[in-house]
Amino acid sequence: MLIEILCTGDEILSGKTVNTNYSHIARRLVENGFEVCHGTIVGDDRVSLLSAFGRAAERADAVIVNGGLGPTVDDLSQEVAAEAAGVALELHQPWLDRMAAWYRSRGREMPDNNRKQAMLPAGAEFIDNPIGTACGFAVTIAGARFFFTPGVPREMRRMLDEQLLPRLRAMRGGDSLIRLKRFHSFGIGESRADRLLDGVEALAPGGRVKLGFQSHYPQLETKLMVRGEDQEEMESILAPVADAVRERLGAFILAEDDETVEGRVVASLAAARQSLAVMEMHTGGAVGGRLLGAGEGSEWIRTCQVSHDPGELARLVGGTPLSADARLESAVAETLAGHLRGASGVDHALVVLTAPGQPGEEGAEARSLVVIGIAGPSGTETREAVLPGSREWFRLGAGELALDCLRRHLAGVPVYQKIDFEQH
Amino acid sequence: MLIEILCTGDEILSGKTVNTNYSHIARRLVENGFEVCHGTIVGDDRVSLLSAFGRAAERADAVIVNGGLGPTVDDLSQEVAAEAAGVALELHQPWLDRMAAWYRSRGREMPDNNRKQAMLPAGAEFIDNPIGTACGFAVTIAGARFFFTPGVPREMRRMLDEQLLPRLRAMRGGDSLIRLKRFHSFGIGESRADRLLDGVEALAPGGRVKLGFQSHYPQLETKLMVRGEDQEEMESILAPVADAVRERLGAFILAEDDETVEGRVVASLAAARQSLAVMEMHTGGAVGGRLLGAGEGSEWIRTCQVSHDPGELARLVGGTPLSADARLESAVAETLAGHLRGASGVDHALVVLTAPGQPGEEGAEARSLVVIGIAGPSGTETREAVLPGSREWFRLGAGELALDCLRRHLAGVPVYQKIDFEQH
Repeated sequence: MLIEILCTGDEILSGKTVNTNYSHIARRLVENGFEVCHGTIVGDDRVSLLSAFGRAAERADAVIVNGGLGPTVDDLSQEVAAEAAGVALELHQPWLDRMAAWYRSRGREMPDNNRKQAMLPAGAEFIDNPIGTACGFAVTIAGARFFFTPGVPREMRRMLDEQLLPRLRAMRGGDSLIRLKRFHSFGIGESRADRLLDGVEALAPGGRVKLGFQSHYPQLETKLMVRGEDQEEMESILAPVADAVRERLGAFILAEDDETVEGRVVASLAAARQSLAVMEMHTGGAVGGRLLGAGEGSEWIRTCQVSHDPGELARLVGGTPLSADARLESAVAETLAGHLRGASGVDHALVVLTAPGQPGEEGAEARSLVVIGIAGPSGTETREAVLPGSREWFRLGAGELALDCLRRHLAGVPVYQKIDFEQH
Repeated sequence: MLIEILCTGDEILSGKTVNTNYSHIARRLVENGFEVCHGTIVGDDRVSLLSAFGRAAERADAVIVNGGLGPTVDDLSQEVAAEAAGVALELHQPWLDRMAAWYRSRGREMPDNNRKQAMLPAGAEFIDNPIGTACGFAVTIAGARFFFTPGVPREMRRMLDEQLLPRLRAMRGGDSLIRLKRFHSFGIGESRADRLLDGVEALAPGGRVKLGFQSHYPQLETKLMVRGEDQEEMESILAPVADAVRERLGAFILAEDDETVEGRVVASLAAARQSLAVMEMHTGGAVGGRLLGAGEGSEWIRTCQVSHDPGELARLVGGTPLSADARLESAVAETLAGHLRGASGVDHALVVLTAPGQPGEEGAEARSLVVIGIAGPSGTETREAVLPGSREWFRLGAGELALDCLRRHLAGVPVYQKIDFEQH
């Protein structure tokens, strides 16, 4: 079954808005075992829309149209859908009532132009939107099934998962469920992971597990996809493959599924009722920001301090001021971590030191040093690495390495394990 | 002249990669006065590409193809371009020599498959890529001019600006230059800005200046576009309109053109040789991170401290510990800012306090309080505001407000000016 994604709107066409709706829809379709054959972007223009609907119907079995369901005159999706399907627009009274009730419950009067959002092509299948005023609908145009979705991302995402995917599965028939298992790792590139995991798919009978990767530097996502009709059966098919991935990628695995490494760090601090202080130099606060934003448990992060000035960092922890020519080395990070732990009265202290950005470092072959010191109840640990890339790229790697070392420290796993991105 | 953007590649089609190349190309075209009529996304598939080239040639006068110029077998752009143009592929010897020299200069041997990148459709116009191994080229297919560009963003961006835009201007003929003037503001929404700037276009003779907006919450970008043949003439046409924008938007303007508010703050600190310390609560370090990352002058930011714990913040500055029930109010921020300024020995201190995220606050009508205190050589200033949105949205607004207050404080402009996003 071939699917086309058709995004509408002048803001998308003109590049004012980055088209993250497209990539979200496509990714969710692929994760659910569907094939996206084509993407189209057109503006709020009747002629272009009508022509795009016609072309899409020729190419695809199902078309997901995104946008153009708003209350204003430049939102044309219902109108053009009706025209393409050769039917008139009709008032969908239940949806008009729902919108009116929504406004009433907020003590506001529904603007007249919202009525337009309840006008659907005659005979269209209504598709619910529980969190907005743009309902979805489906019609058949020239033999292809068209699904119309709102442009507001959170409304579209919910409608896609709750309403569209089940309908598309029903259209496809046969195996109707997909189980997607994800592992997030740091330190190995896609090609090494591919070699390490060679043959794991064969651990599931009948080639039913498909292995895939998605790299978001500095993390790599390893995906296992299994298709089936029964949730329990899929879990049992997946289990030996997932176990093999855990064993082969080992301590490189940061987190699984919706977990994040920062989430795991704060969760393990909270579970142990232990506190943390963080100090960073020349990182823009990348490490502390992620930990403080990690949600539940982040109250165990007592403080994050960032500076460009090594002397200031030393002063903050009441330690011996660093001399102006103090080198960026493990011993300095270790000493600062010890002082920070003592001065803040925390259980663990993390210190991340990097050099200031150098002019001309933006070339393809730039590299910089990061030095990490961790002090905890059972002593101190350090890690140094030279990581590649422009300032921004380097910071991504350095921040990830620091969080990874902290995760390893808290889990009692050796902090040092050579990573693929390291240079010498 | 109608332009289509045609993005190729399985990673884009399947949503693995967000299509920022599309939005960049489209935005640059619009900023240069061109009209984008259609966007197409196809995978690395010969049949789809050939059909997409044919459709694009029917719709557009010029087509920008992005991606598919790499050295591997799934990169098909040259091959399909040749087929669509009805010509053979030919070796472009100068490009092969350039690639070989590039590898030699790095002491590496050129892999055999790079040769493929020098194979262009016979008669194609060569388009230089000074920073990569994928050269661009142009061919005419069914009456439309096709420009082929590499998928690597920085290579594409440079080729677009340096090579494609001049060629497209030549195709368009007539007025060949565009001057785009941008103002970044905080505190006014698009509709209010539109009213405030009513009539400014008329200050330029002959309707030659076009006004536009682009909102990136919490900032609003106001754009003035003038078209002409002579740089100096365009500047003189633009000047009275730009002056009117500066006067009407007044202190809401954060920065112009490529400046940022954080860049202006660090530049004014550096110019005055004055230092700054920052303290934040429950913001994830948003303010300090932006200031530390602002580039030149950011060494005047002495330290940024972030915590979830008001007691810890007070301890850090050696002030009276805050009681557990200390309310989030201006007096607390003011006191902390004074202590922070003294303890850090800096010229200016900025304190940004917000409440922790509340469960269930993610609804459309969530709102939170931010309290800002600034201490400087000439005394202290405070600002409170209730800002809307989910946690992430609120943080964007709170961080922007804090930077804006700091900018105003350093510029000697009143810190308080009511903003459109504020609630009560």
